[in-house]
Amino acid sequence: MNPNQLNFSGGPGALPESVLAHTRQAIAALPETGISVLGMSHRSEWFRDILLEAENNLRRLLGLPEDYAVVFMQGGSSLQFAMIPMNFAGEGFGPPAYIDSGYWSKRASLEAARVRPSQVVWDGAATGYRELPSLDRLEIDPAAAYLHYVSNETVEGLQFAAPERMAPVPLIADMSSDFLSAPLRTDRYSMIYAHAQKNLGPSGVTVAIVKRSLLERIPAGLPAILDFRTHIANGSNYNTPPVFAIYVLTLVTRWLRDEIGGLEAMQRINQRKSRMLYETLESLGDAVSIHASRPWRSQMNVAFTFGDARLDQAFMAEAREQGIVGLEGHRSIGGLRASLYNAVTEGAVRTLTQAMESFCQAHA
Amino acid sequence: MNPNQLNFSGGPGALPESVLAHTRQAIAALPETGISVLGMSHRSEWFRDILLEAENNLRRLLGLPEDYAVVFMQGGSSLQFAMIPMNFAGEGFGPPAYIDSGYWSKRASLEAARVRPSQVVWDGAATGYRELPSLDRLEIDPAAAYLHYVSNETVEGLQFAAPERMAPVPLIADMSSDFLSAPLRTDRYSMIYAHAQKNLGPSGVTVAIVKRSLLERIPAGLPAILDFRTHIANGSNYNTPPVFAIYVLTLVTRWLRDEIGGLEAMQRINQRKSRMLYETLESLGDAVSIHASRPWRSQMNVAFTFGDARLDQAFMAEAREQGIVGLEGHRSIGGLRASLYNAVTEGAVRTLTQAMESFCQAHA
Repeated sequence: MNPNQLNFSGGPGALPESVLAHTRQAIAALPETGISVLGMSHRSEWFRDILLEAENNLRRLLGLPEDYAVVFMQGGSSLQFAMIPMNFAGEGFGPPAYIDSGYWSKRASLEAARVRPSQVVWDGAATGYRELPSLDRLEIDPAAAYLHYVSNETVEGLQFAAPERMAPVPLIADMSSDFLSAPLRTDRYSMIYAHAQKNLGPSGVTVAIVKRSLLERIPAGLPAILDFRTHIANGSNYNTPPVFAIYVLTLVTRWLRDEIGGLEAMQRINQRKSRMLYETLESLGDAVSIHASRPWRSQMNVAFTFGDARLDQAFMAEAREQGIVGLEGHRSIGGLRASLYNAVTEGAVRTLTQAMESFCQAHA
Repeated sequence: MNPNQLNFSGGPGALPESVLAHTRQAIAALPETGISVLGMSHRSEWFRDILLEAENNLRRLLGLPEDYAVVFMQGGSSLQFAMIPMNFAGEGFGPPAYIDSGYWSKRASLEAARVRPSQVVWDGAATGYRELPSLDRLEIDPAAAYLHYVSNETVEGLQFAAPERMAPVPLIADMSSDFLSAPLRTDRYSMIYAHAQKNLGPSGVTVAIVKRSLLERIPAGLPAILDFRTHIANGSNYNTPPVFAIYVLTLVTRWLRDEIGGLEAMQRINQRKSRMLYETLESLGDAVSIHASRPWRSQMNVAFTFGDARLDQAFMAEAREQGIVGLEGHRSIGGLRASLYNAVTEGAVRTLTQAMESFCQAHA
């Protein structure tokens, strides 16, 4: 088994083998142009076609209608955290509403508060960030500029259930760590964004999907680079985009479309992977504890511990000998974390669960 | 000759062959870790070492003392255009001074004007952007927050002479297209920045070198992601950095350090390349015209035309048959442009000059 397939990192995640093979070839020379992808101009016809294909693949995978714009940007979610209130919570709108459900959503709401007065409408601190609210049952001030949440909390391993109704205000979701892991009712959202380095490709590119009607509220006078309209009007080519990262993202969407067969198929694979891992963890009884309470367990990130740091370290060392890497928990909560992003195979998860079982037998 | 060596693109430019070879290997698996560079965590020891090496290589190449911070960011020069006035032209400072010497510096000053009142202290429009001022002879209001200029105008092929004296106000330079092409008196500057896709590596990463004393004037309350202190305090790892682009940048600085032997050596090579091309163009007499007036001709970008669009197209077609690509002039001024970034070899320039001579003989 290729060691790349045993990468459970929560940060820049694993990429499909066929994508890596294409990428390696493209560094030498793109079959289409004879030039390395690293030397291709962002104004070339080749790159125009790549941008178009990336957008079209996303539209097709998500069933996204034309009243949403799709743009590729730099700066990660952290730049979106600042740009969203700058663009969509101008004068005439009430303070935007934020759900604080974990490490990343808290960062989003803290950054928003630096830009505009904002409000936290649900705070997971009381549950130790082990539970989540129902999006359909939150009470939201209808004057709020928007409601923001993070659909999957990568650090704590929590994942929201999709909203069943339209929210009373525009709904904005950071889907960085579960984007394209399953089908999505995009019509519930006014904006969805996701940085690449989980399911989409290498770090350095962020996808923003924005309902065009939301653009009307952008105030005049923002710096051009921080105004979503700039990126949309210039087809993601206002300034030099991260050509390489967008190229790999395109390969990943091609893989999802042609090799996996779409998001329903991807969801079935992801369900099997997470079921396999959670069932193993439960079967180990008191030897392990899972951070998230059961109803909000993430299919993408499984945060757990063997009870103390010494045992966690011992397991990581054993796993590493079998080529299993990337299990370190996030520095903010410690413990272990297995991330099951799209490119992590069922075989890799099986190897991980077997390693867990052996470890617990040896240390029982 | 490898076709990659004949890439004269002004956008993402050519990369050294040895860097491409290492990069191809790293996509498969890094020798150090056995994992693809695209799957490496930005919190790994490996990446911490890469960040340190990138910084140290830059410090050594430039002879940069500790009172300058070095950070790697996203967003290109366009984001710097907005961040610089936000950070360094707060209350208590007069309007920052901008030199409008071409396409890119104009974009910088227009973006600054959206953020803070600013002033244009020299405007190249009257010369058709064919000439530049002397940095030492400009009259600058000593109350101006800073003086900003673009050291090399990529589009027009203009390059400033280095300042011989300290400017009366902090000097900030966008060196995106001539950074690391020659030694630099860094002590003349309060800030230098450069995005990667010319001499440094693939697009998606921007280097900012900031004198630490300048950080004291950053106003409170900026969004964290737009505050230089955030990136400096977190060692360029506040949010997920563009790991791949920074890795390739590190390889490029290693190549400059070990294979080229430093910036003096690089400068000699670049001088020979640009001399060869300008001498050929001059030898062709009226058949070609060079955009820039002689004293301000750039060593990095040579903008010229065979007189009309039909001839320019004909030359590009002939050149393409010999594997010479990337000669399209910038869309804003048309014509042709040969970019002679560090990785373009003397052999490639010779091939180009020979193609020019053949073309002129055939069309005389």
